[in-house]
Amino acid sequence: MAVIVHKASHRARVADVLGWIDAHSAPLEAQEVTLAQAAGRVLADRVTTSVDVPPFDRPVVDGFALRSEDTIGASAYNPLPFRLIESADHLPPASAKWVHAGARLPHGADAVALPEQAENKGDGACCLLEAVIAGAFIERAGSDAARGSSLATAGRRLRSADIGLLAAANISQVPVVRQPRVRCLFTGRDVAEAGTPLPADAVHDATGPLLASLVARDGGLLIERRWVDRTVTAIRGELASSRADVVLVAGSSGPGPDDHAAVALREAGKLAVHGVAVRPGETCGMGRTASGTLTFLLPGAPGACLWSYELFAGRTIRRLGGRSAALPFRSRKMITARKIVSEIGMTEVCPVQCIGDGAVGPVTSYAEMGIAAAAHADGFVIVPEGSEGYRQGTPVLMYVYDEASSNLAMESDVKP
Amino acid sequence: MAVIVHKASHRARVADVLGWIDAHSAPLEAQEVTLAQAAGRVLADRVTTSVDVPPFDRPVVDGFALRSEDTIGASAYNPLPFRLIESADHLPPASAKWVHAGARLPHGADAVALPEQAENKGDGACCLLEAVIAGAFIERAGSDAARGSSLATAGRRLRSADIGLLAAANISQVPVVRQPRVRCLFTGRDVAEAGTPLPADAVHDATGPLLASLVARDGGLLIERRWVDRTVTAIRGELASSRADVVLVAGSSGPGPDDHAAVALREAGKLAVHGVAVRPGETCGMGRTASGTLTFLLPGAPGACLWSYELFAGRTIRRLGGRSAALPFRSRKMITARKIVSEIGMTEVCPVQCIGDGAVGPVTSYAEMGIAAAAHADGFVIVPEGSEGYRQGTPVLMYVYDEASSNLAMESDVKP
Repeated sequence: MAVIVHKASHRARVADVLGWIDAHSAPLEAQEVTLAQAAGRVLADRVTTSVDVPPFDRPVVDGFALRSEDTIGASAYNPLPFRLIESADHLPPASAKWVHAGARLPHGADAVALPEQAENKGDGACCLLEAVIAGAFIERAGSDAARGSSLATAGRRLRSADIGLLAAANISQVPVVRQPRVRCLFTGRDVAEAGTPLPADAVHDATGPLLASLVARDGGLLIERRWVDRTVTAIRGELASSRADVVLVAGSSGPGPDDHAAVALREAGKLAVHGVAVRPGETCGMGRTASGTLTFLLPGAPGACLWSYELFAGRTIRRLGGRSAALPFRSRKMITARKIVSEIGMTEVCPVQCIGDGAVGPVTSYAEMGIAAAAHADGFVIVPEGSEGYRQGTPVLMYVYDEASSNLAMESDVKP
Repeated sequence: MAVIVHKASHRARVADVLGWIDAHSAPLEAQEVTLAQAAGRVLADRVTTSVDVPPFDRPVVDGFALRSEDTIGASAYNPLPFRLIESADHLPPASAKWVHAGARLPHGADAVALPEQAENKGDGACCLLEAVIAGAFIERAGSDAARGSSLATAGRRLRSADIGLLAAANISQVPVVRQPRVRCLFTGRDVAEAGTPLPADAVHDATGPLLASLVARDGGLLIERRWVDRTVTAIRGELASSRADVVLVAGSSGPGPDDHAAVALREAGKLAVHGVAVRPGETCGMGRTASGTLTFLLPGAPGACLWSYELFAGRTIRRLGGRSAALPFRSRKMITARKIVSEIGMTEVCPVQCIGDGAVGPVTSYAEMGIAAAAHADGFVIVPEGSEGYRQGTPVLMYVYDEASSNLAMESDVKP
């Protein structure tokens, strides 16, 4: 793909950038992990069971195992006598055995009667007061999963019930997509790390903690955070020596004479995109080093860094790890309570707050939008490049951060 | 609260059980953690900033810092000359200084002109081709957060943007609600741990890996997994010596002569509930040890164990950790594509699958429902105790496991 020159009039379209990302971010190879490490990971291959789950017919309740055909006609007016057997691999006719839920059903038995359906007469005798049908309170061998059947398919993100089912099938290791290894390089000008003294005219770094949190959320493995001199040589050297799957370079992404990340990436491999028609984040770029490491140039301003990450770098990390490319937020149709303004030709991310149920308004005007706007938002709306924004009362798709902390009507409690 | 006797006719109502849980599970005390550990944790106290964020007025773009009043009347037909100054703490009238995004704005300047709004004449002279308004491309000191203002309030579950904002305010530690420490005790009969040889008539344990995954999902800290002899003495001994916030006892929860967990808990403290009008999971129980540890008796059958955890133990762990008590799934209104049957007097959890957009049907009949039903479901419906279930075509509230893996219409991609 050709280098996209970074001029305001030649910024890459978001759709083209997403296309470039998707063409270069197939899921990574498989690795085996133990079941204890597998929750939340993405299966690389189908997992089948070599055993029946459960392995034998078993009662789901404590009760009397018996032959259902022996119970025909039993009632309170016609109690049928049964002989209680202590231990029996094979249950003779007209006999019953007390069984615990989950134990193996004795051979010959095909149903379980509840304690209240029988009367204990003592001396190993009992009477059945009710007929039971074949299969009553029995869980059949293989009813959870028959030998040879699939327990979960490739691409599935494992949740707790999967873990339980895999464990029941005696599977202790599963093949999952390897987590992408991510390096973060910081080139901030007049930026100090947290906890260090603040030089005059400097600010405390927000991008480091921000990116670490985002990478973890998307299933990436942050293997290094490093401060790099703001020179082409220093940045190029770091990029050329990188053994990660993804490198994020925060700061120095712009087109100015003191912004060297794009030149460094071009010299270290290929600069595929520099400048995107998206706001915040129009100076971001991306490409690949000679060794193939996917490299993202993110603005140093925390708000712009966040959104460049969300739209582009995060998508890449999620795809490499086998997750859905989609933004990791659910979406919901809302109505604009106030107008949302956007520039034609720019895809704009607009942090919004819920205003009553089903309506949203922008958090601030764009000019004021730093990282605080994202922190105070309940979610965001993406205004496409062809739109000037939305009038009050327009239906829009909102990406919701967290239902529980927003003003959305909550219905997620146990509502019996 | 009085002990609720465990008979079918005397099972506790779900609403009463939730009431008992909520009365005994206030958020735990605060602990300080570093910002790197804070994502996903719940703030125990409001965090305010002692500095302005940003600390000074600064440009949000690279450009020419200047006085907006000097630009009045500038146009392509009336270029106004400005003197370029290399270094200036104080900007004299009719002068401009090239500034980088994020740097401190020189004193006297109140706006930034974009490079394309000016023409460089060389020799320290440039011409402005457009008037700029005061505040153009300026981020004001304290616009993200003014000194003394709140960055996040108690009870907030911190997400990435919060971490970025806190870092920008030079906050490196925050007070969060301590994670509840959870012990799991297993009393399974004829159950073998994963990877161990399977005795005759035994099954592999699913509850251990299942509960470990659930506890982690809900923010609990699993401090111990231990197999315990299936005797009153052994279980009581473990309960009495427990220093955890929550103990989960898997197996031995029933009313049978070989089920000792309820007796053990009564002797080790107080058995508040034994038997709940909920299915699966009607044998579950709960109470507190003499030292106050919240103790849950969960059925050993994996499906019943899962649902007892989801409805009761999980709620407790989430509440102790300061999270929302609600089930950790979003809910969505759906229509039943097939009828859902339930017993009057029992709250029933019905795993469902999506059938087309907006419709759901039960995964299996209840009789067949093991852990596989939960693994294969897209979510579940809770049928209240007063209902016999739902006819085809009835609106129901579905709790959705994971939109991305279900058949729900997906709208979460970047849709510019």
